[in-house]
Amino acid sequence: MVEEEVLSGVSRRSLLQAVGAGSSAGVMFAAMGAVGLAPTAAAQPPSKSWNPPGRSDFALSGRSSKKVVVVGGGPAGLATAYELKKAGYRVTVLEARHRVGGRTLTIRDGDSETDIDGIKQTARFDRDVYMNAGAGRIAQWMVTMDYMRELGVPYEVFTNANADAYLYNEKSGATPGNPIRYRTAKADVFGYTSELLNYATDQGALDAKLTAEDKENLRAFLRSFGALKSDGTYAGGNNRGFSEYPTAWNEHGTPLPGPGTASEVLASKVGQYFAFENNWEQAMLMFQPVGGMDTTYSYFVRAIGQQNVLLNSPVTAVKNTSRGVKVTYKPKRGPERQIEADFAVVSAPAGLMRTWDTNWGTEIDAALGEFATGSPAGKIGLQYKSRWWEDDHRIYGGITETDMDLAHVWHPSYGYGGRKGLMIGYYNTGANARTYADLSPRQREARAVAQGEKIFGPKYRTELDSSFSIAWHKVPYVEGAWAYPKTTSPLFKKLQEGQGNVYFAGDWMSEISAWQHGAFWSARYAVQALHARVMSA
Amino acid sequence: MVEEEVLSGVSRRSLLQAVGAGSSAGVMFAAMGAVGLAPTAAAQPPSKSWNPPGRSDFALSGRSSKKVVVVGGGPAGLATAYELKKAGYRVTVLEARHRVGGRTLTIRDGDSETDIDGIKQTARFDRDVYMNAGAGRIAQWMVTMDYMRELGVPYEVFTNANADAYLYNEKSGATPGNPIRYRTAKADVFGYTSELLNYATDQGALDAKLTAEDKENLRAFLRSFGALKSDGTYAGGNNRGFSEYPTAWNEHGTPLPGPGTASEVLASKVGQYFAFENNWEQAMLMFQPVGGMDTTYSYFVRAIGQQNVLLNSPVTAVKNTSRGVKVTYKPKRGPERQIEADFAVVSAPAGLMRTWDTNWGTEIDAALGEFATGSPAGKIGLQYKSRWWEDDHRIYGGITETDMDLAHVWHPSYGYGGRKGLMIGYYNTGANARTYADLSPRQREARAVAQGEKIFGPKYRTELDSSFSIAWHKVPYVEGAWAYPKTTSPLFKKLQEGQGNVYFAGDWMSEISAWQHGAFWSARYAVQALHARVMSA
Repeated sequence: MVEEEVLSGVSRRSLLQAVGAGSSAGVMFAAMGAVGLAPTAAAQPPSKSWNPPGRSDFALSGRSSKKVVVVGGGPAGLATAYELKKAGYRVTVLEARHRVGGRTLTIRDGDSETDIDGIKQTARFDRDVYMNAGAGRIAQWMVTMDYMRELGVPYEVFTNANADAYLYNEKSGATPGNPIRYRTAKADVFGYTSELLNYATDQGALDAKLTAEDKENLRAFLRSFGALKSDGTYAGGNNRGFSEYPTAWNEHGTPLPGPGTASEVLASKVGQYFAFENNWEQAMLMFQPVGGMDTTYSYFVRAIGQQNVLLNSPVTAVKNTSRGVKVTYKPKRGPERQIEADFAVVSAPAGLMRTWDTNWGTEIDAALGEFATGSPAGKIGLQYKSRWWEDDHRIYGGITETDMDLAHVWHPSYGYGGRKGLMIGYYNTGANARTYADLSPRQREARAVAQGEKIFGPKYRTELDSSFSIAWHKVPYVEGAWAYPKTTSPLFKKLQEGQGNVYFAGDWMSEISAWQHGAFWSARYAVQALHARVMSA
Repeated sequence: MVEEEVLSGVSRRSLLQAVGAGSSAGVMFAAMGAVGLAPTAAAQPPSKSWNPPGRSDFALSGRSSKKVVVVGGGPAGLATAYELKKAGYRVTVLEARHRVGGRTLTIRDGDSETDIDGIKQTARFDRDVYMNAGAGRIAQWMVTMDYMRELGVPYEVFTNANADAYLYNEKSGATPGNPIRYRTAKADVFGYTSELLNYATDQGALDAKLTAEDKENLRAFLRSFGALKSDGTYAGGNNRGFSEYPTAWNEHGTPLPGPGTASEVLASKVGQYFAFENNWEQAMLMFQPVGGMDTTYSYFVRAIGQQNVLLNSPVTAVKNTSRGVKVTYKPKRGPERQIEADFAVVSAPAGLMRTWDTNWGTEIDAALGEFATGSPAGKIGLQYKSRWWEDDHRIYGGITETDMDLAHVWHPSYGYGGRKGLMIGYYNTGANARTYADLSPRQREARAVAQGEKIFGPKYRTELDSSFSIAWHKVPYVEGAWAYPKTTSPLFKKLQEGQGNVYFAGDWMSEISAWQHGAFWSARYAVQALHARVMSA
């Protein structure tokens, strides 16, 4: 989750082994030796090594395969079942909802969701239009890339940043119809900050910090990065963009008005959005499965076996028994059923687990209780009759940022140049998400359109076809977008160890909560712990 | 062409109407009004307006359609023929080479090229592997996007920048096996420059320039952008990346060593590459046709009619006649042929045109003579048996930059996660391009691999399958990557006006030389001038 991670950068820094002021450039660059570049190093992805269980483990040891019930058909649960199945385990997945994927929810035409208040929406989208209502992006270093490759899921670039997307800071003076493009904002902010640093350098203000050679290197960087004139000042330039770009010879295009003064540029606060692109979880290139994020999970289910994944089967009890586990669930029709197995791996929201009938003891209960309630997050998908953001605004993908209650507005990363398309009209969290969640779906649409119209103009309203909105803290059996444990608590370790024949998994049990990467690694840990026990029995 | 454009930013700035220090933020932001946002403004792309000729122009005026011979089957020539054909003109395209597309050359398995020294190469690539030997990228504001859409060419993201691609500055101390990733370089350069500017601000060095409120806004930006600690200093952090990323809970990953000191970071000169991403022509998102850049031109040919495009037909003479034009060309077999038409549109390199027998007069000859000789540029495509840059280095697309004679190394923007793939081992210009061009294809490969191995390690050699290299100044009938006219010369205007019944087109007659956008707009200008004359006759 980006907001959290950006904020926690400082606290996490304590984990880093800073080499400090005395280090040589050689040491600084030696960084890459660990990524498999040294001639003797085996090629490996930059992730914690993983030794998956294999069928040969059973064959060679003469042990018989075990049966595991997996509670929850989201990324953690399905990855658990998949890895166990590959190794020869018999698995059954119990999913409470009518579909797998958890918070990797893709909404297509005809899909329905009923929230915990009983409000039902059914999507009315065109055939090639979808909405990733939950997870939407994958960084290239994440293990999610490896699962897509292993499963054969086709993927494509997710456009997390775009020079032509807009910034719209209403609180800092932006007026309706006057957003600024990233490229313009960057040219101005980088231009003026480079000018200021160049000026300070020339004034001798950094003489205590920098040698003459350092200053020369710094000036060379600033001139290039800030597009400074030879006198060291910033005065705009082509990198700001144009209202009409140059064309044939002697048609120089129409430059944008501006730049404003340094004071005006700083007051516009557009620079606040630039750190995002350099964030370790968010930096491009990023990727998405072709056709919707939940595509990955249909591939998982195929590999696990459709018959081994029971939908509409909410769990009501998980019990350790003398021989293994007994899990009770309530199918859509008929009475409760029980399933017995050697082990259970439970991947469900902590709050939900605490409502079950369990015997895993007070320490596990207490650990689950230490989770924050799932955070609210909301999205609205707006299907448009035309791709006016491409045609009129020349924005092919990326994110328009606002300081309004919409927060982030996503342009689609698929279907470029097609007939229709779907924008994410808001992706907001916290109080903003609650504000929209408390409205009816039609009211949410009306509010989102009224806000977005300020940025994009009248077509934001007139071209609208249909909408679908989600409020994650109101989705049954989920009730939140993400949750963070008290990782400093000694109790949390209990969850990671499991209790009796029950193991736990979920993105919230990882260092990368709210990302599929975290869910997958928590699953791998549970699988490794379970398998090691089976092999040592 | 990026190098040129980056350098010319300052001189072009004279074109901009800077609003200056007295402007209000409102004026600055009013920029966007011109992009079609004002409720009354008609939607239009941010390019010079274009009124294409139409079939109704002939039908309504009772005029008969005219015949036009187009010399050159590159972007300018094919767009000319396409627009004229759409309007009902009869067109014939004469292309000197064995294929259309000009410098939008895609090399696939079995493709052969013989250079002006008689050296022949034939590509040995896998079926799904291709090399864009010329043009490789399209910015979203460019008219090229519109032609792809109009023709139905499928396109996808071109990955022009990637946080995980490498920077390798050998001249500034980088040693074999120790490249630095963009994300690490950015974290360190932005971190330290933010720290320095924050320090100068705190010291009062900017008090003559900034108000107290300005300084608060500046500090807020620097803290965020530079990921500074609360004391205003930079000490690394997650955005630098990891050698092993965090995974399950309590597996914090392995941070990279560093950062080095500010002095070391500046001395590494990695910041010199950052301006590229903000360049007006190069900023992401960018796009490419699926399957190779020349795909667009096979769509053009289909629309023009294959029978109207004559390959292997180099022109030797272009003459104005009393009734129109007479163009002489030399087919592959048999004697020279002549084709008569009402008009000719000539889109060929200026140097080539001066070798023809013409009667367009001394002013046109002189104008053509004012062009610089076509600049050298070279590329090598390296097909690899595996996608080790994805598997081992987690680089999915983008460009690795060097200060070696390779200049730019491109990771492929297609075929992610596939079995094999093709890297562009060098994309260099000027003296570096000449150095490689003067080698045999095998020597070019050996030199490129020896250099690239320093960055990527032994697989750069051991996984190599085959290669294909191009030296644009040695391609027959092209003999250069791009050329710039003396736009200040009064003679150049003569070219744009045409002479007699001959018009001229080409990217070199645009404000955006070396881009398809420029070629297309020059074609549109020629088409408009020609058609206006026909309609007024």
